[in-house]
Amino acid sequence: MAATRLTLDYDGTGFAGWARQPGLRTVQGVVEDGLARLRGGRPVDLTVAGRTDRGVHAWSQVASYPDDPVTVDGLNAVLPHDVAILACEPVADGFDARRDATSRTYCYRLLARRVPSAFEHGRALHWPRPVDLDALHACAAALIGTHDFTAFTPTETDHVRFERDVLHAGWTREGDVLEFWIQADSFMRHMNRTLVGTMLEVAGGRRAPEDFRALLEGRPRAAAGPTAPPHGLYLAAVGFGGATES
Amino acid sequence: MAATRLTLDYDGTGFAGWARQPGLRTVQGVVEDGLARLRGGRPVDLTVAGRTDRGVHAWSQVASYPDDPVTVDGLNAVLPHDVAILACEPVADGFDARRDATSRTYCYRLLARRVPSAFEHGRALHWPRPVDLDALHACAAALIGTHDFTAFTPTETDHVRFERDVLHAGWTREGDVLEFWIQADSFMRHMNRTLVGTMLEVAGGRRAPEDFRALLEGRPRAAAGPTAPPHGLYLAAVGFGGATES
Repeated sequence: MAATRLTLDYDGTGFAGWARQPGLRTVQGVVEDGLARLRGGRPVDLTVAGRTDRGVHAWSQVASYPDDPVTVDGLNAVLPHDVAILACEPVADGFDARRDATSRTYCYRLLARRVPSAFEHGRALHWPRPVDLDALHACAAALIGTHDFTAFTPTETDHVRFERDVLHAGWTREGDVLEFWIQADSFMRHMNRTLVGTMLEVAGGRRAPEDFRALLEGRPRAAAGPTAPPHGLYLAAVGFGGATES
Repeated sequence: MAATRLTLDYDGTGFAGWARQPGLRTVQGVVEDGLARLRGGRPVDLTVAGRTDRGVHAWSQVASYPDDPVTVDGLNAVLPHDVAILACEPVADGFDARRDATSRTYCYRLLARRVPSAFEHGRALHWPRPVDLDALHACAAALIGTHDFTAFTPTETDHVRFERDVLHAGWTREGDVLEFWIQADSFMRHMNRTLVGTMLEVAGGRRAPEDFRALLEGRPRAAAGPTAPPHGLYLAAVGFGGATES
């Protein structure tokens, strides 16, 4: 049976997240509806590499379905402007975006200055407080490797495994924009936003970097900081390092 | 009498341009209303360095009024999210943003690739056709200096002087984003958008670079190309090179 890989970006502002939910506008719902329209009504079930929550953006999401591609231009023509198909390609039979993805990279953006910007509204967290960038670098360095992230996901959870392998983590600064980049095998619900919310406590001097480090050994959710808002978060890339894709 | 200089950015998508017009949502209207609110109802008349049309953005617009400043945070708190005050400063008596500005810099952004992007919708012109970047460079080089831009503004016009001094003009490419940057003493209505629309004819091989050069010597509007849409255009900077400001 044929298989198709979709690469897409979306501005999460107007979506109740990726996953189709009755009565809500979701990315999966909008794209599946567009695909069905191009396929003469034949429905598809999309599988996705990185399920994103309400308000979270994607620069390069990957989804798949077990059938032939449609044309990129045709699909974009029936989609709204806050989602764009970047590629729609045939891939090896049995390809599954969720199962075959070997890493996900996320970026969290902050506008770290006193005044806001019309262009960053909804696209970066406005953070007018002082930031200790050295402390953020120390936190990022501590993240690399295998850790137990129980403290960074809601207590009520479907996750059964709380360890994740962080391949890369780092903060960058360009002008007033601070970005936190992290690549791992996979992520738990709210994990990135809670990491950022907790690191911002460290950046403001309200929590010691050693305290942040200790949270990576498996602690209750209450030990970590708040969950940062979704509008600063972007699914930036999906890696396929296995045999299926490269 | 005191004077205040405002620096602001705005996403032009939701505005009928800068200039206050009855019954329309304009940047001037929104900012003047916000200022009046902070000033206990006392109205101000804003003067602006670069009047922008419907849908045109600004990264760094400058406006002024002949009275004391308000606080940046207070003004931002009463403004909608598609306009942001970057600075609100006392300046020398008699300062006038329009009269004292000695140069304006604009940028026109193109997403030059087949597929669109959710993040560039409304913020760059999607241009899926081939572009001859060398031809664009030739056009930009021809723009530098003093020229008669009659061909690049509507025939029905309030302008009385059609020569402008172009201090800088150039195209840049970063990934799929092409940008046209131009700095001049001042600009006429639609001038940048018509320059871009005409240069895109050259970039697509439908018009020779020499033909573009000839248009800079004063030709009828009909000799130039179409007016590119407003959503790719940004007022990027205002220069104050005279005695009042530096």
